[in-house]
Amino acid sequence: MMIEKIVQLALEEDLGLGDITSDNVFTPQDRARAVIVAKEDMVLCGMEIARQTFWLVDEELIFKPLKHDGDFIKKGEKVLELEGRSLSILKGERTALNFMQRMSGIATASREYAQITKPYGVLMVDTRKSQPGMRKLDKYAVRCGGARNHRMSLSDSVMIKDNHIAAAGSIGAAIARIKASIGHTPKIEVETTNLDEVRQALEAGADIIMLDNMTPQQAAEAVQFIAGRAVTEISGGITKENLAAYCAAKPDVISSGALTHSVPSKDLSLKITEYIK
Amino acid sequence: MMIEKIVQLALEEDLGLGDITSDNVFTPQDRARAVIVAKEDMVLCGMEIARQTFWLVDEELIFKPLKHDGDFIKKGEKVLELEGRSLSILKGERTALNFMQRMSGIATASREYAQITKPYGVLMVDTRKSQPGMRKLDKYAVRCGGARNHRMSLSDSVMIKDNHIAAAGSIGAAIARIKASIGHTPKIEVETTNLDEVRQALEAGADIIMLDNMTPQQAAEAVQFIAGRAVTEISGGITKENLAAYCAAKPDVISSGALTHSVPSKDLSLKITEYIK
Amino acid sequence: MMIEKIVQLALEEDLGLGDITSDNVFTPQDRARAVIVAKEDMVLCGMEIARQTFWLVDEELIFKPLKHDGDFIKKGEKVLELEGRSLSILKGERTALNFMQRMSGIATASREYAQITKPYGVLMVDTRKSQPGMRKLDKYAVRCGGARNHRMSLSDSVMIKDNHIAAAGSIGAAIARIKASIGHTPKIEVETTNLDEVRQALEAGADIIMLDNMTPQQAAEAVQFIAGRAVTEISGGITKENLAAYCAAKPDVISSGALTHSVPSKDLSLKITEYIK
Amino acid sequence: MMIEKIVQLALEEDLGLGDITSDNVFTPQDRARAVIVAKEDMVLCGMEIARQTFWLVDEELIFKPLKHDGDFIKKGEKVLELEGRSLSILKGERTALNFMQRMSGIATASREYAQITKPYGVLMVDTRKSQPGMRKLDKYAVRCGGARNHRMSLSDSVMIKDNHIAAAGSIGAAIARIKASIGHTPKIEVETTNLDEVRQALEAGADIIMLDNMTPQQAAEAVQFIAGRAVTEISGGITKENLAAYCAAKPDVISSGALTHSVPSKDLSLKITEYIK
Amino acid sequence: MMIEKIVQLALEEDLGLGDITSDNVFTPQDRARAVIVAKEDMVLCGMEIARQTFWLVDEELIFKPLKHDGDFIKKGEKVLELEGRSLSILKGERTALNFMQRMSGIATASREYAQITKPYGVLMVDTRKSQPGMRKLDKYAVRCGGARNHRMSLSDSVMIKDNHIAAAGSIGAAIARIKASIGHTPKIEVETTNLDEVRQALEAGADIIMLDNMTPQQAAEAVQFIAGRAVTEISGGITKENLAAYCAAKPDVISSGALTHSVPSKDLSLKITEYIK
Amino acid sequence: MMIEKIVQLALEEDLGLGDITSDNVFTPQDRARAVIVAKEDMVLCGMEIARQTFWLVDEELIFKPLKHDGDFIKKGEKVLELEGRSLSILKGERTALNFMQRMSGIATASREYAQITKPYGVLMVDTRKSQPGMRKLDKYAVRCGGARNHRMSLSDSVMIKDNHIAAAGSIGAAIARIKASIGHTPKIEVETTNLDEVRQALEAGADIIMLDNMTPQQAAEAVQFIAGRAVTEISGGITKENLAAYCAAKPDVISSGALTHSVPSKDLSLKITEYIK
Repeated sequence: MMIEKIVQLALEEDLGLGDITSDNVFTPQDRARAVIVAKEDMVLCGMEIARQTFWLVDEELIFKPLKHDGDFIKKGEKVLELEGRSLSILKGERTALNFMQRMSGIATASREYAQITKPYGVLMVDTRKSQPGMRKLDKYAVRCGGARNHRMSLSDSVMIKDNHIAAAGSIGAAIARIKASIGHTPKIEVETTNLDEVRQALEAGADIIMLDNMTPQQAAEAVQFIAGRAVTEISGGITKENLAAYCAAKPDVISSGALTHSVPSKDLSLKITEYIK
Repeated sequence: MMIEKIVQLALEEDLGLGDITSDNVFTPQDRARAVIVAKEDMVLCGMEIARQTFWLVDEELIFKPLKHDGDFIKKGEKVLELEGRSLSILKGERTALNFMQRMSGIATASREYAQITKPYGVLMVDTRKSQPGMRKLDKYAVRCGGARNHRMSLSDSVMIKDNHIAAAGSIGAAIARIKASIGHTPKIEVETTNLDEVRQALEAGADIIMLDNMTPQQAAEAVQFIAGRAVTEISGGITKENLAAYCAAKPDVISSGALTHSVPSKDLSLKITEYIK
Repeated sequence: MMIEKIVQLALEEDLGLGDITSDNVFTPQDRARAVIVAKEDMVLCGMEIARQTFWLVDEELIFKPLKHDGDFIKKGEKVLELEGRSLSILKGERTALNFMQRMSGIATASREYAQITKPYGVLMVDTRKSQPGMRKLDKYAVRCGGARNHRMSLSDSVMIKDNHIAAAGSIGAAIARIKASIGHTPKIEVETTNLDEVRQALEAGADIIMLDNMTPQQAAEAVQFIAGRAVTEISGGITKENLAAYCAAKPDVISSGALTHSVPSKDLSLKITEYIK
Repeated sequence: MMIEKIVQLALEEDLGLGDITSDNVFTPQDRARAVIVAKEDMVLCGMEIARQTFWLVDEELIFKPLKHDGDFIKKGEKVLELEGRSLSILKGERTALNFMQRMSGIATASREYAQITKPYGVLMVDTRKSQPGMRKLDKYAVRCGGARNHRMSLSDSVMIKDNHIAAAGSIGAAIARIKASIGHTPKIEVETTNLDEVRQALEAGADIIMLDNMTPQQAAEAVQFIAGRAVTEISGGITKENLAAYCAAKPDVISSGALTHSVPSKDLSLKITEYIK
Repeated sequence: MMIEKIVQLALEEDLGLGDITSDNVFTPQDRARAVIVAKEDMVLCGMEIARQTFWLVDEELIFKPLKHDGDFIKKGEKVLELEGRSLSILKGERTALNFMQRMSGIATASREYAQITKPYGVLMVDTRKSQPGMRKLDKYAVRCGGARNHRMSLSDSVMIKDNHIAAAGSIGAAIARIKASIGHTPKIEVETTNLDEVRQALEAGADIIMLDNMTPQQAAEAVQFIAGRAVTEISGGITKENLAAYCAAKPDVISSGALTHSVPSKDLSLKITEYIK
Repeated sequence: MMIEKIVQLALEEDLGLGDITSDNVFTPQDRARAVIVAKEDMVLCGMEIARQTFWLVDEELIFKPLKHDGDFIKKGEKVLELEGRSLSILKGERTALNFMQRMSGIATASREYAQITKPYGVLMVDTRKSQPGMRKLDKYAVRCGGARNHRMSLSDSVMIKDNHIAAAGSIGAAIARIKASIGHTPKIEVETTNLDEVRQALEAGADIIMLDNMTPQQAAEAVQFIAGRAVTEISGGITKENLAAYCAAKPDVISSGALTHSVPSKDLSLKITEYIK
């Protein structure tokens, strides 16, 4: 349902008080068939949101998927077919494509990252650096690309950062305060920047230890020190280029905001293939 | 007000049912000072939306801008100061940064493009390929970078594309239908792909002629043919690399979706500088 | 979708926490047929919004239009038939009629005005003086009556009024500021009250010149002076009575807020024709 | 709060994605003083909604009422003063005026009607024929003019109409069904069209008897027959012209939809009086 | 429609950004059949809201009621059957049950109370002490149990309490002020705590007199004194235990907040009965 | 912000189209002081939501807390003071009290349960059986009473129930599917009903094992078998009466829906103490 809100917002901002071009060229009775086609290779993502977009415009549009989210598709392949009122197809076009292009961009990037980490047995995950209003969709696209999700929001697991540590006085004190208040379901993760902090986090009983902005060598040392006593996560400054080097440090998990905050869109376009009499 | 909706949506998805880390480390009485700092050079954008984000979390936060939207700032420069409840600062942090990073990314890219087109007297404009729910913000960021906006939505000017032409039978027929229905305020733009279409558009009285997916040479020819009888706009496949080549064709305007659909975020971060007793 | 919001608001305010009369007379199983009938001659408008209203109450109502928006209908003619749950018909009745009566009132008035201007080749248009929340519907009703729309909102074309001119210092300065900021799609209109201002607007390159609150004679003079160098629009104090006199001034366009702000509703009523067992 | 929704909807539809004129003439720092002035005599109404409109645009605008809702004001009188950002004043202008003009129109008409009925001791009331989304405001305006309100919505009192009677079999049967289900707080009103129905309604224990579409003579007869045993309300086809004739029938109440569905707006306008440096 | 909002809010808060268990066990293609079963005896209530909940999750779920709202059902009886996507059934489960369990609790309690008052000819009614956001549903559940509703909201009938009396100066003054302002449809109720106040209320023309927090004896005396000149309502401190004693005072109505503010939920559970291949 | 929605919904349903009693007794200028007082002993909860309720009605009300959420207060103690417009105090009264009474009921019950489990070192937690729209508030009230929260929603930790196990084929298969898809942050809980299932859950690597609907003896056996290899949680059929018996089984956690789905409200009332001139 949160998704419906962003779809609605997107359509409202694009349609404004009406499509003054199409509304004056087509009659409400004009019908057409259309396809959406990939203009480059990509991991496809966003079929369901495209369906919702077109159906919010017009519940009677026939929406026929030819591919599925997560499929790797080649330039020129058809992704879906539409049939129904020409006006409805054109009113949903830009918004549906804006969603699919971003989501396919994220899925494609996620696949590239996950393929690098996989041989090392390292889980590639995202962060909360998603586009405003798109959290659920961005995280879904990450999964479609074969990577996984870090926490969805501030309410589903504990992440102790420098500000919390400073306020509580120490890593141990911060964990103690939190354990005294939360239930038994959330895991506790601590951001650390050096071996001393890693040691403190371990002693205080952290479930997950983030190794933040370390070099691959520092990270490797920390992973060895932890020795399986907590889940290890490398984060900070990860790029496709240095990803393998960090994998070599053998963490359980590597996380990167780049999966969602700076991905180039993938190009898709809509073509009307037939005007139906 | 549309902006308030996207800010609210973004906060809701990030906060979920509460920040289980900060809520258990800080008391509602704890207060702090914080700054947001640039981690790389950029055209800053998003100060107002950051203010709205923090104020939607807590109306009593003191928000003190040190820079303004559109300012070119260097890595390390402070952008704004915050003072108030520690909890409120941390709850707004990620959402405010997610907005600012994207908007500064767009503003920075827009400036790079606009600096290329300016010496040629060519107006650099965006498209409707903005992120869902972010149309107004994306277009504002484009302006902050010194580029300008193409139409905001489907309701503010007429853009006749291939589908409209096909449905009406010809460019002339499409323009005639539209002129028979609209008022006197919208301009009429036609998408053309060759000189013959350009000629038809001119004859039918188009106000703006888009030269779509032409080579720089083809575009130059079309601009010469039009000879000032309509506004000329080059679009399709524009990159920072080929931008100068297209400027040499001397159009009035060049438009590119890349300003908003594929921009790398600019890095900003929030630091708590002082815990106030 | 904006329309769905006003329909929902209207139903909420009319239904409150339930229809305590009908809910206690009918069972949810009771079914009926009903018609909506014109109680006076009118240009019909609002069929689609009536459909949305009834369907928001109950998606299973059968809604069968007998006339179309824009039809001129005579007193006593049936406009639409309904079949389904009696409760749903009665719950939607008042709200659907409230929409149709206003919109038919606007359409009928618009037709009367447009029929006067047509022989002169003058376009009759509305203004932004529409009822709050009804902009899109009011403007649609204007079109159904054969008149056309001035700008839809503040964001789709430029209209420079006395306040802008005063702030900028002169008409020329105001246009210059705006041209320095906007893209290439909006037209620029300037409100003028005398020949000197008309001249300034022309020199500064206005696309449309509004002749505001002039007498027919003054307007005629201004139109002659402009001589086709800009679109001419007469506005201010237009009534059905003086409309022909202003047409004689031969402007391109005449605009009047009276089309939407002061129209008498047209009378329509709903009758249940049969209780279905 | 329902009012906030219609104000927001109204501002959204008027502002769209921004005021491209004012935003490019004024800076956010520009400040001004303005007044709203009556352009004709009227009963003023809508001050509070105007305040809400301007404050939804900008909470820092100084809004200084010079008159109050319900005041009878003369052409040329100042109604309120504004001070603050020029941009905010201009963005709220049209929407605030659209509200005030309609509400003042209703209040003025209500006063005219109520002044006719008052000497006869007859209560003048409205109906549910209000503008969609404006129920609460329309009914408030009626009260400001000195008339009163019929029921606010379908949920606050019982009104038995022809359709209910037909479905239940008789007036008596309809009242019986309702009394068997409702609590003790709502009054029961029955619509009648002749003396026989009046008699049935009385016998079944109706609290209020509506005399619908009767001539003044028929209504007078019915009132005499009822003789105080129920509240009497005349409705249907009431105009300012025939109102006194109906008053002479000595009912308790006369109701008319014309108070809200067909009122001419009253003219008010906003002037900027000073640009503050 | 107000109901749709609370259903949506409830689903949003339960689903958050996705059901991370079911989404990873089931595919979107997996289908199942399920039943909802009563785990104890109860008056069933909430079938329609359960349907809305499941359909808001997935419009294609087959929802087959086996019982109706208001039915008295025994432990072990099946209430409804579902068929469709396994994921949709599980996503709606908790929210639908949370609604039904509360509403069945209210309906069951209401039946118990109403069965006590019925032999005395006393109407059992609720109050405005309903759960926030659940007013319409809580009051509907009361009716399903055979009790009736006091006023729905502050806008549908007048209830004069101590604060109003104190502000106006006396019961008579308060009623006078109100009669001078309201229309003819709302009844006027006055809260009284002793015979003197009862007398004042009667003299001022109250339609309903509430006997608040009196003992059964005091209430009986007041009822006798009123002697049918106004509707009598006993309220304050009513429990199932003292209800018969208050009935013996022979009021027209007894009202109790306990019907909605402190009811134990009735236990219902959902079982998947078959996985469909 | 989700909280603002439920407050708004609650106010809308209570205020409808206006408070026809207070609006006609008080003028908007009338001011008063008021207190909210406890009518029985309780753990207080809901001060912040009461503040939001009153401030949504009127931002200028002075709201002065005398007690804090979580305080144990005695019958007769004052909880908060209000000062401002009489109308605003009365409009917020019922809604604010409806919130506080429920939340204080939950907090009080939670305290009673937690005081029983505390000496055994057992954590008392709630479930997802909260009132629709009140999840965040219900769970907050639980914490105010000294108990803690189970997961907030379906998206924050994994809970494998019978339906998931049946669909996957076995506990092991269900866990395997989930581990193959989720990130590293959520804990995995499995619902078990006998020792064999407990063993399977342990072997498959469950983080938390729920012992569902077991007798205290069965639960004790299971806890011993698990022997610290997973967190143990007893659930199903927990009452205040049998709580100590289950504690004796020495689980880590006991969860009960009764904390939120069937709590009696605690009685609070608002008194106006002074009318300010």
